[in-house]
Amino acid sequence: MSATSPQPMFGTVAFIGIGLIGASLALAMKRHGMAGRILAAARRQETLDTALRLGIADDASTDIADVVKDADLVMVCTPVGVCGEVARAIAPFLKPGAIVSDVGSVKGAVIRDMKAALPPSVAFVPGHPLAGTEFSGPEAGFAELFEGRWCVLTPLPETPRAAVEIVAEMWRKAGSNVDTMDPEHHDQVLAITSHLPHLIAYTIVGTAVDLGTDIKQEVIKYSASGFRDFTRIAASDPVMWRDVFLNNRDAVLDVLQRFTEDLTALQRAIRRGEGDTLERHFTRTRAIRRGIIDAKQA
Amino acid sequence: MSATSPQPMFGTVAFIGIGLIGASLALAMKRHGMAGRILAAARRQETLDTALRLGIADDASTDIADVVKDADLVMVCTPVGVCGEVARAIAPFLKPGAIVSDVGSVKGAVIRDMKAALPPSVAFVPGHPLAGTEFSGPEAGFAELFEGRWCVLTPLPETPRAAVEIVAEMWRKAGSNVDTMDPEHHDQVLAITSHLPHLIAYTIVGTAVDLGTDIKQEVIKYSASGFRDFTRIAASDPVMWRDVFLNNRDAVLDVLQRFTEDLTALQRAIRRGEGDTLERHFTRTRAIRRGIIDAKQA
Repeated sequence: MSATSPQPMFGTVAFIGIGLIGASLALAMKRHGMAGRILAAARRQETLDTALRLGIADDASTDIADVVKDADLVMVCTPVGVCGEVARAIAPFLKPGAIVSDVGSVKGAVIRDMKAALPPSVAFVPGHPLAGTEFSGPEAGFAELFEGRWCVLTPLPETPRAAVEIVAEMWRKAGSNVDTMDPEHHDQVLAITSHLPHLIAYTIVGTAVDLGTDIKQEVIKYSASGFRDFTRIAASDPVMWRDVFLNNRDAVLDVLQRFTEDLTALQRAIRRGEGDTLERHFTRTRAIRRGIIDAKQA
Repeated sequence: MSATSPQPMFGTVAFIGIGLIGASLALAMKRHGMAGRILAAARRQETLDTALRLGIADDASTDIADVVKDADLVMVCTPVGVCGEVARAIAPFLKPGAIVSDVGSVKGAVIRDMKAALPPSVAFVPGHPLAGTEFSGPEAGFAELFEGRWCVLTPLPETPRAAVEIVAEMWRKAGSNVDTMDPEHHDQVLAITSHLPHLIAYTIVGTAVDLGTDIKQEVIKYSASGFRDFTRIAASDPVMWRDVFLNNRDAVLDVLQRFTEDLTALQRAIRRGEGDTLERHFTRTRAIRRGIIDAKQA
């Protein structure tokens, strides 16, 4: 089915949570004619008013039952910490044969929490689009967010293959490349590529803030020297990231431990004036940048 | 004197070291008509051949005496670890009244090393343009590198005011905003805004490399989730950065210690599942990003 087909992929799509990711996907679905109707649920009426005003959803309600009962696809786009609670809330109202998917940055814990609540009559396709910005809320959403980015699906052994393929096709229409992966492996890869970088960026920006008011102004003024890139990352949604660290704890603590050991080794080299150790380390890391440029992810 | 004046600011400018920063400044000088003649010295003939071929310098030599003897301005653009050695090498050949300046990312150690060697007949204006890319060598240079960026000058009590003003004017013509600062304060501010971010980026990329070949490929593939920004920083020139850490050791170790304490506190909060601590920290750091955007440094 092409993007210009008069028959959309889904009759009704329900978004539970309509922040940056949910709103962007809803807008991409609209642009590419993927949904007959898009409904949104959120805790706060204000969020839904914004989504309606911006044309992100066709209808919206704080009553989750209203939103999911006719849905062919339910996209759970909340912070990962409430995915289990959402699954329990929607379970009684889901249409048999519906597909339930999510966008959480952690897959093991989300699967554990949601799987227990969802009825066997629905197909659960856990997913994670590797895309985002430092902005949040529905007003931050844009249809192009997923273009050229990866989306990782981590289906369960019991997930019907056809449902996985439909969700994959949705992400491809939104412009993403789709991979499938074991949930545990996903969580390990993301711990190093995403979760640890965010934790470190949050930390260093906090360290700078604590240096005091006078130096803080200068940190802002001279941020282009490296610090700036960290502040962008450290401006990401606090609740989303709180939940990521709480729900991918073991993998994050493991890479954090490795990082700390490596940092301590460099600290020791600086203290002892061991220039060779520093130069050797700094030369090695250049190669990985080259790989990223070659993979067109730069 | 305007950029279009037929009379350049300097008759002859000598660059000692013609990598990314030196080459970019030479190109900016040419574009804005700041120098009658640009000469370059470097250790390797190959570097000079590249500089000549790209029109960065009008003439070049590996013999430092040849290059500096007629210079009105000598720009030392080497890694900071050899600035003292360069000062000793050029000292016997400097023209009385010449201005000597540098571009080092560390000011205290560079001033200590160079000041001891330079004769009182020249004006020493230590400087640091806060600009750069992850590329190095003369072929990486471009005339616009300094546009909209800060350049910090850290003059000594004995530096003639007129010489400081001439160097400031040169950086302004190259497009920079110029600040003056105490060298020690400069080194503290840069330790947090630039040196620590680079050390951390080098560390995390190294940690990822060590995870093994299979995961390394995935790290590259999925780098857009935060890791990518670190790899760009960690691709910076290894020798330049080795010298920065060795020469700004105390300030770097101080902020590194603070960073490690803060990271340990977050690690503890993750291990204990203390969501409130995490959320509170992540909320605080958002404000500083706002400040950077407002300061137009984003």
